[in-house]
Amino acid sequence: MSVHFKKLALIGIGLIGSSIALAARRQGLVEVISIATRRQETLDEARDLGLGDIYTLDATEAVRGADLVILCAPVGAYRALAAAIGPHLEQGAILSDVGSVKAHVVKVVGPHVPAGVSFIPGHPIAGTEHSGPAAGFAELFAGRWCVLTPTSGVPQADTDRLVAFWQEMGSSVECMDAAHHDMVLAITSHIPHLIAYNIVGTVADLEATTQSEVIKFSASGFRDFTRIAASDPVMWRDVFLTNKDAVLEMLGRFNEDLSMLQRAVRNGDGAALEAMFTRTRAIRRSIINAGQETAAPDFGRPHE
Amino acid sequence: MSVHFKKLALIGIGLIGSSIALAARRQGLVEVISIATRRQETLDEARDLGLGDIYTLDATEAVRGADLVILCAPVGAYRALAAAIGPHLEQGAILSDVGSVKAHVVKVVGPHVPAGVSFIPGHPIAGTEHSGPAAGFAELFAGRWCVLTPTSGVPQADTDRLVAFWQEMGSSVECMDAAHHDMVLAITSHIPHLIAYNIVGTVADLEATTQSEVIKFSASGFRDFTRIAASDPVMWRDVFLTNKDAVLEMLGRFNEDLSMLQRAVRNGDGAALEAMFTRTRAIRRSIINAGQETAAPDFGRPHE
Ligand SMILES: NC(=O)c1ccc[n+]([C@@H]2O[C@H](COP(=O)([O-])OP(=O)(O)OC[C@H]3O[C@@H](n4cnc5c(N)ncnc54)[C@H](OP(=O)(O)O)[C@@H]3O)[C@@H](O)[C@H]2O)c1
Ligand SMILES: NC(=O)c1ccc[n+]([C@@H]2O[C@H](COP(=O)([O-])OP(=O)(O)OC[C@H]3O[C@@H](n4cnc5c(N)ncnc54)[C@H](OP(=O)(O)O)[C@@H]3O)[C@@H](O)[C@H]2O)c1
Repeated sequence: MSVHFKKLALIGIGLIGSSIALAARRQGLVEVISIATRRQETLDEARDLGLGDIYTLDATEAVRGADLVILCAPVGAYRALAAAIGPHLEQGAILSDVGSVKAHVVKVVGPHVPAGVSFIPGHPIAGTEHSGPAAGFAELFAGRWCVLTPTSGVPQADTDRLVAFWQEMGSSVECMDAAHHDMVLAITSHIPHLIAYNIVGTVADLEATTQSEVIKFSASGFRDFTRIAASDPVMWRDVFLTNKDAVLEMLGRFNEDLSMLQRAVRNGDGAALEAMFTRTRAIRRSIINAGQETAAPDFGRPHE
Repeated sequence: MSVHFKKLALIGIGLIGSSIALAARRQGLVEVISIATRRQETLDEARDLGLGDIYTLDATEAVRGADLVILCAPVGAYRALAAAIGPHLEQGAILSDVGSVKAHVVKVVGPHVPAGVSFIPGHPIAGTEHSGPAAGFAELFAGRWCVLTPTSGVPQADTDRLVAFWQEMGSSVECMDAAHHDMVLAITSHIPHLIAYNIVGTVADLEATTQSEVIKFSASGFRDFTRIAASDPVMWRDVFLTNKDAVLEMLGRFNEDLSMLQRAVRNGDGAALEAMFTRTRAIRRSIINAGQETAAPDFGRPHE
């Protein structure tokens, strides 16, 4: 299915926004790309990188005449952005986003979407630990999933067009309910980030000499956790503020399991430890088989 | 400093033993390599890979005439191995190991070391999630640290020879007290592995459909944890059985910090969350600057 939009407006032009700009342009999915962001500095950077055709600090100007608008800012900024752009959205336009949580987005953006505009929230399951317009690349979404959570009353034809848009950028698309998305992502993404931030924080509290040894010896496991703990703090603050219930539910399960492991360590229960360490290998194999991970040892990191 | 041993005996020939065999041979550090392991199957594999010169299932035979003996089996096997080989060690030989814990090794191996043999426990801070003789490669130790914990009474000249041996294989060497090693490695390696096994275990308990979604969407964070949770269960069982106190101490700190984060999520305390997520970035930067990690986004994983 071939898909084409006459004007794509990206509100926010960091890692995700710039990757969409590059991928949509490369695939010829859009005629004009208009870019809005908060700070002049970021706008200048986007212009220097040649990411779009129109650059503005005024989101309402960016969305004028756009038949596809994608919010690519931190979720905490959505309410104000939606209130501002709502009245300026084109009849027949599709409004989407890339935020890492979905039920909250439906709640805060939904009320500002005028009749005649199709609101289809989205979340590309792809990213790196880097931020800003220079971090983006056209291949970011290739081979990755994108979840869409179409709101009720949206014409199927519009959902189909947005599905095709993401497919053309290399993604597989899955449509689901916003609440289900938030529950699955809580354990897949939010808890891993919380745990990673937490253990890196524990190390940050150690006295300076021990900390420098931890850094030296980090190849023994710790460094794997530091990658996702280097992700943008504002984005992650917003995730935990807006997906509280699912996060606390999954964190409860994690803590129960950790208490069991802790008890096994304390009791020197080798059989229990070995059993718990054995059942986890199949999951890594499934992820590699699903094409979501490299099979190369050590993530394929260079060994000089 | 040039170093040379006439006969290197490797007891255990998995990832670490085979990497030592390949690196020592490539650098011309040894004349003869003799290999002992538990199972015929593994011995045959080592022979097919051409890792050594002498192959035997009898560790006492392997150490005969060796001036350097390195235990490369899981730590849980050390006591029996030491009791067996102790009486057959050559006068003037160096006995070392590669186990991930050190105080326990001193305790169980020490009593079996005869006078005239220099016991210098060691731990190369390098590895991958793969196991067995085919997983090894000569570059594994390049740019990585190796910790040695020389026992009292060992001649400095012997420690110097073992330091030079690891340096020739590409490592930087640090000597420290065994208990200090265990404390630092508890937070650098043992807790990260415990946490990773734990979260993968939590996912393994989810109902099948949710689990398959977690696998699909694992690129959002979860997959980073599955790498180290795919490490050998027996090796890790032994680590937690033999470094209990340091692990429980560091796990206590981790849990305290996690309770604070959990409370911040529950209370919707955005300022506290952002502050905790901000202080962790500097640590990743230090690890990259220390040459212990790649700066490429996403660990340099391929993006098709
Ligand atoms: N990073 C990931 O791995 C990832 C993955 C999937 C989804 N997401 C989602 O993608 C969205 C953007 O993430 P990102 O990684 O691309 O972030 P980023 O690189 O930090 O970029 C954020 C962009 O949003 C703009 N922005 C920030 N605050 C704003 C505000 N109050 N009003 C208007 N614009 C504002 C920034 O503008 P200025 O620079 O001008 O301030 C910047 O252009 C988030 O909602 C996140 O949940 C991220
Ligand atoms: N993997 C890492 O990342 C890493 C890093 C640093 C240090 N270490 C340490 O290195 C040591 C070996 O780890 P590895 O990753 O090389 O393990 P591995 O690949 O699983 O190989 C273990 C070797 O030990 C032998 N072995 C197992 N049980 C034995 C027993 N009861 N008696 C005699 N030999 C036995 C195995 O022989 P069979 O196959 O014949 O049974 C095999 O040759 C461990 O002490 C570990 O703590 C590992």
